[in-house]
Amino acid sequence: MRPLTVSDLNPAILKVQYAVRGELAIKAEELREKLQTDSHGLPFKKVISSNIGNPQQKGLDQPYLTFTRQVAALMEYPPLAELVKGKWPQDVLDRAKELQEEIGSIGAYSHSKGVPLIRKHVAQFIQERDGYPSDPEDIFLTAGASAGVSLILNVLITPNVTGVLIPIPQYPLYTATLAQYSGVALPYHLSEPEGWSTSLDEIQSALAKAEKEGVKPRALVVINPGNPTGAILDKSTMQNLVKLCEEHSLVLLADEVYQANLHRPDTHPFHSFKQVVREMKSPIPLFSFHSISKGVKGECGRRGGYFECTNISDEVRALLYKMASVSLCPPLSGQIGVDCLVRPPRPNDPSYPLWKRETDTIHDALRQRTQLMAQRLNALPGVSCVDSPGALYLYPKLELPDKAVEEARKLGKQPDELYALQLLEETGICVVPGSGFGQKDGEHHYRLTCLCPGVEEYVSALENFHLKFLEKYGGL
Amino acid sequence: MRPLTVSDLNPAILKVQYAVRGELAIKAEELREKLQTDSHGLPFKKVISSNIGNPQQKGLDQPYLTFTRQVAALMEYPPLAELVKGKWPQDVLDRAKELQEEIGSIGAYSHSKGVPLIRKHVAQFIQERDGYPSDPEDIFLTAGASAGVSLILNVLITPNVTGVLIPIPQYPLYTATLAQYSGVALPYHLSEPEGWSTSLDEIQSALAKAEKEGVKPRALVVINPGNPTGAILDKSTMQNLVKLCEEHSLVLLADEVYQANLHRPDTHPFHSFKQVVREMKSPIPLFSFHSISKGVKGECGRRGGYFECTNISDEVRALLYKMASVSLCPPLSGQIGVDCLVRPPRPNDPSYPLWKRETDTIHDALRQRTQLMAQRLNALPGVSCVDSPGALYLYPKLELPDKAVEEARKLGKQPDELYALQLLEETGICVVPGSGFGQKDGEHHYRLTCLCPGVEEYVSALENFHLKFLEKYGGL
Ligand SMILES: Cc1ncc(COP(=O)(O)O)c(C=O)c1O
Ligand SMILES: Cc1ncc(COP(=O)(O)O)c(C=O)c1O
Repeated sequence: MRPLTVSDLNPAILKVQYAVRGELAIKAEELREKLQTDSHGLPFKKVISSNIGNPQQKGLDQPYLTFTRQVAALMEYPPLAELVKGKWPQDVLDRAKELQEEIGSIGAYSHSKGVPLIRKHVAQFIQERDGYPSDPEDIFLTAGASAGVSLILNVLITPNVTGVLIPIPQYPLYTATLAQYSGVALPYHLSEPEGWSTSLDEIQSALAKAEKEGVKPRALVVINPGNPTGAILDKSTMQNLVKLCEEHSLVLLADEVYQANLHRPDTHPFHSFKQVVREMKSPIPLFSFHSISKGVKGECGRRGGYFECTNISDEVRALLYKMASVSLCPPLSGQIGVDCLVRPPRPNDPSYPLWKRETDTIHDALRQRTQLMAQRLNALPGVSCVDSPGALYLYPKLELPDKAVEEARKLGKQPDELYALQLLEETGICVVPGSGFGQKDGEHHYRLTCLCPGVEEYVSALENFHLKFLEKYGGL
Repeated sequence: MRPLTVSDLNPAILKVQYAVRGELAIKAEELREKLQTDSHGLPFKKVISSNIGNPQQKGLDQPYLTFTRQVAALMEYPPLAELVKGKWPQDVLDRAKELQEEIGSIGAYSHSKGVPLIRKHVAQFIQERDGYPSDPEDIFLTAGASAGVSLILNVLITPNVTGVLIPIPQYPLYTATLAQYSGVALPYHLSEPEGWSTSLDEIQSALAKAEKEGVKPRALVVINPGNPTGAILDKSTMQNLVKLCEEHSLVLLADEVYQANLHRPDTHPFHSFKQVVREMKSPIPLFSFHSISKGVKGECGRRGGYFECTNISDEVRALLYKMASVSLCPPLSGQIGVDCLVRPPRPNDPSYPLWKRETDTIHDALRQRTQLMAQRLNALPGVSCVDSPGALYLYPKLELPDKAVEEARKLGKQPDELYALQLLEETGICVVPGSGFGQKDGEHHYRLTCLCPGVEEYVSALENFHLKFLEKYGGL
């Protein structure tokens, strides 16, 4: 018997990288365990996971929305209705009853595309949002947006042939999944000086490069609002992107999981690509992704989301259905979450006042924290930070002293990895170095989430660390 | 703009087949809708989905276990504890509290391998089952066994190079996933005359064939108890399989999701491969899969399960962890389900009497239905059926009249597809033709689940249809 070694495995898998839960996150786990011991000797009291957009995690404790959870509890145990009647709002009981009548038990596999009634509700939500019809048959419920993206990339990519345009910086799900399925990443850079805007020229030159290298570009990934950038596309850029897809016969993958995370909706509103494509009467094939993990719901652990197919033939859709069947169905708890996302309480419903208060509080806190953090980071020497109008993150740029760059080189690390590692070890704050999302050569960034309970204390820790870091490496 | 057509897509995906939710299942959905209309003109009142092992689905209505659902409801909405205190058993409240303290909110992403405490409980369960230690670090919680199998195959398969031995007949997850990742299926036939036993000779000859064709065999899949066969491996066969893996440096994938579905445990007990590998002190790499979807829990919709790594190096395990990270985490509702599976109420717990009654009832019903169905099917002309000692299925063999075979050929269908299609159209019972699982050339089978409420009426419908079918095609 030869033991199984890494060299026996699928070489594509070895190339996969996923920094959000990479070395830093593993180190953070170790520190968290060490903190449990009496003589840990660490200079901080808790580890704060700012590496991942996970609002409800321990220590961040963004509250759940009561409506969703009451409906979900009733779905878990229907006889509960007796007990809570008169105590919980009637619309909660009605919603659970309606879903139970359709679904039966949430312990059963559902339709592989998701419960038909919930898909109908998703289509209604989209129609209301965009002003254009949506067909429930075009909706696939998924185990989070991740599962949808993975399915679509798997289906679109012919290994070692197909090119996919991805923004840099990007959420590393895309590079990881491209590596997994041996797709060819065609990076296009976003423009930091213009608030991380999307530049058509950059995409054109990525296409030209692909052509030279014999790679067949098949799809364009756009994350809007952006992760890690928080940038929001304006309509004319979106129209230009759609035209570009038309010219180059590209499938558009629109990752719109942050569509409800808008900090300045008056100046930076969200438009869906579905709406723009319909307005333009464009024939481009479009997959749009949404999730219950973000917004103000933050129900990451349920694993719920959906994608909508626009301008996708029945034949291709049938193929997607077949692939969805192999994994049987998305988790019912995620599907219930999607129903509550797309059908929140309405103004006259008994649950509405509480729901409104809860969602307003979360929106306000996110906006305020984002602005305050950006302001304070921008005031630091060697830091500049786009004050992002959306999503859950900031992506500050660092000018690091030569000595720090040199030390990183010696340790075989990226300079922003060195920075992030020391930040973690000295403050307990875990962020993701820019090298995990992609950046221009010689640039340094890190991404942090704008989720934390005590923002003042948190920002002070960032500031103190940064100044000490500069001092240590002769940058002050 | 060229529209997106199937020929633009990943050719591997086109080859994927998954009959459990294939043509028949789609037809069944259509009929179910048609039944809603007043003038449907169909000769039956309801569609019975015997195509998929989905115990809690509407119409089959196997009840859930109260303990699991009460714990889950409390996890969804922790303030519920106040309301149900004194009304629900105290061990339910304690369990939920313990899990909440560890997890925090189930709306947060967990560790990508699953909640550490739940993995510890899984390891304890395995240790109690096998009498050998299990390390929580070797446990990965998954979104059902399907997700685990998919991950492991993706990692093991170098496209177009790696061969994987799979039993025929098999659960089509395996052929589908092999096709998806361009692995080479190396089929080995189970022996129907010996109750679908596993024959070493068959595997040896599949290996010899692979060698001749330049395919590198890397893994052996064993489903025990079997699907669709229900067969259970005896220990000496298991030992021989382990030796064979040693000789040929094969990774063993042990699909043990039906380990609790034993109809005659005295004569046909279940042994885990983990136990056999440890008893033999064998160094073979082993991945063992389990699920909350089967057994008496039948919690398919939660999407919960786990796999255990045995004799897997830290390096390979780290790679699996990286891949698990990309999809963030398994659904928390499934993870809670796993905790309840591996830590059911114990004899002195207040929930125990009800739990015992519920599980006994389900076990008894399954065993009785399986035996009755097998008996009655065997009594039909042209049908023979191994009376399966485990799992949830029967896989009867059909001798079909030449005229039926001829008609199928004309329609471009397999003969057992023709049979299953007519069965559906005339009785509303949806089964899966043997061609979906694999069988020897010229043989015909179908698989049906032993899940149904009124077994007498159900079996009579099968009998009547079969006799009419034979009559129609001159087989009587
Ligand atoms: C841009 C983007 N897309 C998709 C996802 C996946 O989220 P989920 O799978 O939880 O829906 C994330 C998560 O952070 C994200 O940031
Ligand atoms: C043999 C076998 N393995 C795995 C599975 C997958 O089950 P799940 O993904 O629901 O755990 C099934 C489902 O029927 C099965 O029969």
